[in-house]
Order: sequence, then structure tokens, then C-alpha cells
Amino acid sequence: MPVENMIVTPWEVKGEIDYDKLIEQFGTEPITPELLEKIRRHTGELHLQLRRKIFFSHRDLDWILGRYEGGERFVLYTGRGPSGAVHIGHLLPWIFTRHLQEKFRTRLYFQMTDDEKFLIRPDLTLEKTEYYTKENSLDLIALGFQPGETLIMPDTRCARTFYNMALEIAKHVNFSTGRAVFGFEESSNIGIVFFPAIQAVPCFLESMLTGEKVPTLIPAAIDQDPYWRMTRDVAPRLGYPKPAQIHGKFLPSLGRKEKMSASLPETAIYTTDSPETAERKIMNAFTGGRATVEEQRRLGANPEICPIYFYEYFLFVEDDAQIGRIFQDCRSGKLLCGDHKRSLAESVSKFLVRHQELREKARDRLDEYLVDDQFLEMLRR
Amino acid sequence: MPVENMIVTPWEVKGEIDYDKLIEQFGTEPITPELLEKIRRHTGELHLQLRRKIFFSHRDLDWILGRYEGGERFVLYTGRGPSGAVHIGHLLPWIFTRHLQEKFRTRLYFQMTDDEKFLIRPDLTLEKTEYYTKENSLDLIALGFQPGETLIMPDTRCARTFYNMALEIAKHVNFSTGRAVFGFEESSNIGIVFFPAIQAVPCFLESMLTGEKVPTLIPAAIDQDPYWRMTRDVAPRLGYPKPAQIHGKFLPSLGRKEKMSASLPETAIYTTDSPETAERKIMNAFTGGRATVEEQRRLGANPEICPIYFYEYFLFVEDDAQIGRIFQDCRSGKLLCGDHKRSLAESVSKFLVRHQELREKARDRLDEYLVDDQFLEMLRR
Repeated sequence: MPVENMIVTPWEVKGEIDYDKLIEQFGTEPITPELLEKIRRHTGELHLQLRRKIFFSHRDLDWILGRYEGGERFVLYTGRGPSGAVHIGHLLPWIFTRHLQEKFRTRLYFQMTDDEKFLIRPDLTLEKTEYYTKENSLDLIALGFQPGETLIMPDTRCARTFYNMALEIAKHVNFSTGRAVFGFEESSNIGIVFFPAIQAVPCFLESMLTGEKVPTLIPAAIDQDPYWRMTRDVAPRLGYPKPAQIHGKFLPSLGRKEKMSASLPETAIYTTDSPETAERKIMNAFTGGRATVEEQRRLGANPEICPIYFYEYFLFVEDDAQIGRIFQDCRSGKLLCGDHKRSLAESVSKFLVRHQELREKARDRLDEYLVDDQFLEMLRR
Repeated sequence: MPVENMIVTPWEVKGEIDYDKLIEQFGTEPITPELLEKIRRHTGELHLQLRRKIFFSHRDLDWILGRYEGGERFVLYTGRGPSGAVHIGHLLPWIFTRHLQEKFRTRLYFQMTDDEKFLIRPDLTLEKTEYYTKENSLDLIALGFQPGETLIMPDTRCARTFYNMALEIAKHVNFSTGRAVFGFEESSNIGIVFFPAIQAVPCFLESMLTGEKVPTLIPAAIDQDPYWRMTRDVAPRLGYPKPAQIHGKFLPSLGRKEKMSASLPETAIYTTDSPETAERKIMNAFTGGRATVEEQRRLGANPEICPIYFYEYFLFVEDDAQIGRIFQDCRSGKLLCGDHKRSLAESVSKFLVRHQELREKARDRLDEYLVDDQFLEMLRR
């Protein structure tokens, strides 16, 4: 995945017209006011991430909603590569997914691609990915996903089900397609070459298990889109609906112009960071401010490039009027970066304390969420 | 696998020196008289297939025997792609494997590569490969493999165990190695690209399950050798013993100069053929005889190119003195092809009647042999 390119796209382009370009480049559809209205009919007030166009693009979301209004259900699918600790950027699409699960009363298939992480990371053992699978699951559970309807599926635990289903998919995907879509090289190991078939399985899992044709909606950051193009190509040949998608933006890092990244730990806030650590990272963050207080009072700052503002816009200031005021106060020079940082640090600390409490409580509830082959086979009709 | 080349090698070369060339080409070791003597110490009289050099080459067999004499056990591994009916040519290495199992009192891991067959054959569904898995297992059971110590493992049923173990192997095998060893192409599907890792798993299965370092001996036709070169390269990196091998020749077809092949059904005798069908195929077979009876009486025939003679030499005439006489009588013109065919047809019929009886009885015993993930996990220590 050309993640490097993706980081850039949503945040180095500016204004509405640039999102259109991105949508054009990916060949996806924008989420139109009509579509938002259609969603609002089922969710009541639109979720912050829709109101603020953090989820901004889709494939076949209108089709899924049309079916839903006709009385047909769909399921959700998203996932995580359990190779390290979860940061707040990871939570962004999960928070939105939880909202969708609640409002549309749907099952969520959550894939933990422990196999993928093991295959691509020389330093990772399957013991380590198992550790991260559990730790990362705590974050999911803490977000309030519905037990019983949230199936966290580590690939290695669900491998019989997944491998058998992946065979049907793999038979239709050749190496050169894989190279074009996923960037395989001669030096790619043969496990990672096969992996896209495993990753595609949850797109069809509900259909495969029930024998019905139940479509799947994938909420995920837009960089994941190419993964599903292959799956969408294969779907009709297997007689399953194409997976629909709703695409989100990245939460920017606390550094300059980068997606929040686990490889730069000082620019990301982990869900397990202490409030003090989080505060330090925020206080050291890049901002859209000026070199001196005097200059900022006079010329104003630029919230459009400021991670502090982004954090609030994406996650920590729910109220639209309030975020509007913050934007104006940055622009005008009324709000200084130091004060702004302290204010964000307070919100983040409050969030972390609460999240960590829920996260620890989740340790006893892992079995309600983590599933395996036996569980999936019980769902088979 | 370049099976086409392999067919040629054992039977278009002539005499002892040509086997040496084949061994040289593959880089394997000949089975020496010293090694045969070592085997005899454990098996009593040497098996027909060793006496007659049908199993003629090896890798590390001496090492395995040395360990065995030092009190350390080994296990056997061979397999089958369940894509059609079993013919007598398939039975050849299985008969020898059963002998090894009995004499060395070892466990046999028998892999049914239903996934591979499904992936490479456009016409095959997983339902069909399941059917063949059961039908082909009946032939194995009929041969007398020991229940409890013979684990017939369909890849799709053992997929959780196999996939997890295959990940460890796949991490060390890249696409270009796979291309060199297995002949992958750009158009190869991504399932078959991964498959060598699945096929390698049983080489290490006993070690992976028990945590001991138990070596594996693979009895198989020599064309399978390249598959295990990759596995032997990977073994030390995973800390497991390299799989040892003992290599057999092909039973030639009833046609001219070809390995018995399922794609030419008239030149192969299936284990489910009626005695009448088998007789017809034998009576229509190519032989090393002359154009006329008169000519044959005068000049003699050539048993060295004759499938009728090969069938007896490989399988149906146990007694060495008797097979020697048959050879001489062919050579001298005393034994005519029609009589020779009738004599073989009688032996084959007798074998088929008995085998089919045992084969039908085996239907109730499939559960004693066919294993799955749950069974393999019970073996784990």
C-alpha cells in the first residue's frame, strides 16, 4: 500500500475542490448532501465524522442504504494489524464504526490480521502478534462495541474457516494482479502474496456462513481502498455482493504534515499513554501558530495546518458552534497556541483516564468478543 | 513441477549408469549396498521395491537410519492430490510406505492436498475434492496402513493447524524462489503461490506438535524431489531437521514409454476397474514383442521396454527367481506376449478383487484415518 502518498492526499490538498480530485483519482463517489440526508433518516443527528466530512467518500453506500430501506440487512467489516499499541488515530474510524453498528443495528466483523503483520515484520513472532491482538481488542471493547454482534477475528484463530474461503477467492486472483494492486515484488514472501485472499474473506463472510447474499459495508481510511478493488472484481465471479465502502481521512500527527504514525511515537498519542505523557506530546506539537506571541496577536494563526485544531475538529470538540469559534479565534490571533494546547491536553487527559478505565475492565470480557473457527462454524447455516 | 521431464528420466535412460546420471542431475544419493544392508538389519528380507531398485535414490536416509539405530524415532510423510481415481501406479510408493511403517513402527502423516487440486484445476470444486479425498483414502486403508498411526490429513480440514505452521515457513520463501523451484508464472493464482508452504508443513509436523526434533522421511516418486529442496533450505532457519527422502521410480503406463497417467485412462488400471476392464486394458497394451509370432520365436522380445514385464517386475511377481525366468523367456522368444498378458491379467484380476473387497470394508473405517484440526491439536504437547 502506498501509504506515503495517502498521508499527503487528504491534508496537503486544500478546500472542497481537492477532495473531489482525490475522489476522482481513486474513482470513488463523494458523500453528497442527499446521501447524508438519507443517512440522517436512520441515525438521527449526523455523526460528527459525517457532519465534518471526515468520512467523505464511498463506494455503493447509496446502494446499501437503498437495500436497507427495503428491509434488507447488511454487515460491517473493518480491521487492524495487531503489531503495536493503538493510538488515537486508530480510534477515529472505530468510533465511527461503532456509531454505524449502533444506529443500523448490524453485526461487525473485525479482522485482526496477525498473520499479515507476522509475515511482513521480521521482528514479530506469532506470540507477539497474539499479545497485540489482545491488547488492541481492549481498545475496541472500551469503545463500546456491542458484545455478541462484534466478532473480533484473529486470522490465525479463524484460519480453517478463512483458509477454506480464501481458496475460493485466491483461485480468481493471479500474481500479476496482486503485483499491480498490492505492490508485490519478486522478493515478497509467498505468505504475503496469498494474504489479500485472507483479507478479502470477511467481505463475503456473512454470505458464506448464511448462504444469503448479505452485503458488507467497510468503514476505513481511504488508503485501504485498493485492497477492496480486487475483492470487488472477484465478487460477481463468486456470486456475492461487492463490498461497499465508506472512506475516512487520517487524523494528522502532532508533527508537521504527517499522518499519525506509530513509527514516530512522540507525534502520536497512544491509548495507554499517561495523561502526563499525552500532555508533553501535545505541548511539544507543531501548530499553525506564529514565531512570537506578538506576531500571532497581530497576524493570527493558521488552524488549517494545525494538529491541535485538527484533534479538536476530528474528535475532541463535539459542538459545531464551538469548533467554529475556535477556528475564528485561531485565525484572529485571539487564541494563542499555548492556551490552545493546554485546553486540548485537558480534553485528551479526560478521555484517556476514562478510556483506560474501560480498557482495563475489558480484560475480563475478551472472550465475549474474540472468536475462532468453532464460533464461526456455529454461525453456519 | 516439470513432470514431463521426469517421466522420461527413469525409463528412457537404460542400465545402471543412467540411474547414476539421474541421481547426479538431481544431486541425490544412490542407495548403496551398504545402505541396503543397514535397512535389512531392521526389516529382515529387503522389500521387493528395494531389491529391484524401484526405490533407488535418497537424501539423508543414512542419517535417519543412524539416528534410528541410536534409539531415536522418525516419522513418515507422503501424500496425494485428490483429483480423481487412484490407479495402480499410485499404489506403488504407498505399498512401500506401508512396509516402512510396519518395519520401523512409525507414524505416517499422509497429506491430501485438496486445496492444491482445487486451486490448479478450473473444473474442480471443494465438494469434488472432498469426494476424491474419501474415495482415495479407501485405497490407502485397503493397503493395510496402521490405524491410529496413519493420519490422513486433508489440507482443508487441517487448515488452522497447517495455515499457522505454513506462516512460519512462508516467511522464509519469496516469490522468486517459488518461481525457480515450482515454476510459478505471472498468471499463477495467489493460492498456488502460497501452497508450497502448506505442502512443507508435514515435514515439520511431528516436531511442531511435540516440541522435539523428530526427523521426517518422505517416500515418494523422484519427480517430487524439487518440492523438498525448498523445505530443506528452510528447515535450519526454523530449527527443524531437514526432511529425508527415499525416491522411487514410476510404474510405466500400458502405452508406449509413458508414466501411467490418469489423463490416458486406457493405459492405466484403476483400483476400481472391474477385472474385465483391467484385462481389456492389458490385452491392448504395448509390449516389447515382435510383429509376428514366428519372428518373436526366432528373435525373442525385449522385456526392457515392456509394460507387461514391468508390471510383474514392479508389483505382481514377488519371487526373484521367477521374474528372472520370465525375463529370460521373453528374451529367448519362449514366452509370447499373448500368454504373458493373460498371465498378468490373472494376477491383476486377483489383486483387484481382493483390493476392492478391502476397499469397500474401509468405508466404515474412514473416521479412524481421516483427521482434522481438533485431532492434530490433541497431539500437541
